[in-house]
Amino acid sequence: MSELKNAVVLLSGGLDSTTTLAIAQRKDFEPYAISFRYGQRHEHEIDAARSIAEKMNVRRHVVCAIDLRQFGGSALTDDLDVPKSSSVEQIGEGIPITYVPARNTIFLSFALAFAETLEASDIFIGVNALDYSGYPDCRPEYIRAFQDMANLGTKAGVESNAPITIHAPLIDMTKAQIIKKGVSLGVDYSMTHSCYDPAEDGRPCGKCDSCLLRKKGFKEAGLSDPLFETAT
Amino acid sequence: MSELKNAVVLLSGGLDSTTTLAIAQRKDFEPYAISFRYGQRHEHEIDAARSIAEKMNVRRHVVCAIDLRQFGGSALTDDLDVPKSSSVEQIGEGIPITYVPARNTIFLSFALAFAETLEASDIFIGVNALDYSGYPDCRPEYIRAFQDMANLGTKAGVESNAPITIHAPLIDMTKAQIIKKGVSLGVDYSMTHSCYDPAEDGRPCGKCDSCLLRKKGFKEAGLSDPLFETAT
Repeated sequence: MSELKNAVVLLSGGLDSTTTLAIAQRKDFEPYAISFRYGQRHEHEIDAARSIAEKMNVRRHVVCAIDLRQFGGSALTDDLDVPKSSSVEQIGEGIPITYVPARNTIFLSFALAFAETLEASDIFIGVNALDYSGYPDCRPEYIRAFQDMANLGTKAGVESNAPITIHAPLIDMTKAQIIKKGVSLGVDYSMTHSCYDPAEDGRPCGKCDSCLLRKKGFKEAGLSDPLFETAT
Repeated sequence: MSELKNAVVLLSGGLDSTTTLAIAQRKDFEPYAISFRYGQRHEHEIDAARSIAEKMNVRRHVVCAIDLRQFGGSALTDDLDVPKSSSVEQIGEGIPITYVPARNTIFLSFALAFAETLEASDIFIGVNALDYSGYPDCRPEYIRAFQDMANLGTKAGVESNAPITIHAPLIDMTKAQIIKKGVSLGVDYSMTHSCYDPAEDGRPCGKCDSCLLRKKGFKEAGLSDPLFETAT
């Protein structure tokens, strides 16, 4: 049996990042998880990430507190209303109000620092360009550009024989494909959390972009979503 | 008179970033400053940055707290000893122990988020590739790669007619040239702070890489350093 290579996995506690974690494990990486408390209006994401990391036997899970609220500029961190729709078709075009400035760049930068201290060359992120809700920092060309920059800007990239690789295994998958993949790897989706605007008790609203895309994904996969099966 | 364009300036409170701020102002930008509390062992840097921002009439100065200590891996944030030498020639080769993993990448990522919320397309950073002490994230190819990534990963880069520019005006300058430039722009170097390992009262050690490079710079510029003129 070969020795496992360390990798850093960005884990939000959502469906995509949890599937990404399962994929990294299947590829024989030893994952270290990193989550962010970034002025979200809800803590349920962090709670979900902690439970998932524990259940999936992640060796170490780091939660970084970063305050993006002092900059303002997004419905996810400001007091603006999260947009709601009754179907996926109603989701607005263009970059949505829930866009957080430079979020994935900040998250990947922390993951890069964590990877360097672990002497890991591999970072996994669950971005998705198909059902991506219009965020520019979920596109393959962005991920490649980050990887190029990372290899020029770090001790690991400059000195090491193992250049940094940013893995985005979901990037070309539909939500339905992601869910099928996760189910085949044994992911427990009842633990994952996707809603932009959950109720006090953590229950998903069912109407934000993220809930709608999740529902559509389960429907297209021909599976029932454990988060909604009792509610609907 | 033309309207000033907003810009974000990374301000550590050191000689280089303070000179960079003066250059941005001279180029008719309206600078917003950003500093980081990143688990340094001393607060003097932040104090210096605050005083400088105030004296130089920066419209807004944001201090971001980010905890890099949880990752470990650097003498500036760990309990390792900062290396000391008696002359510049003794500074070790290669990437030094004071290297902080992915530091400039994290700092620039926050600056990018700040710039987006200000609708600013210009970010100034005082990195320097000549007297740079061996950090990979101070090289021009790294700065260009960050800029490429920023333009692919942000709403500003994708939608705006004004792509993001990372300005590194000191990148090809010697420390002596930087000091001469700053003096010509009226920079008060008595307010700046460079030491990696200051005394409790904030006085510089005079023997770390940063102090040695600063001393050499003033000497070559034919000027006396207000920080050391009473001490030596």
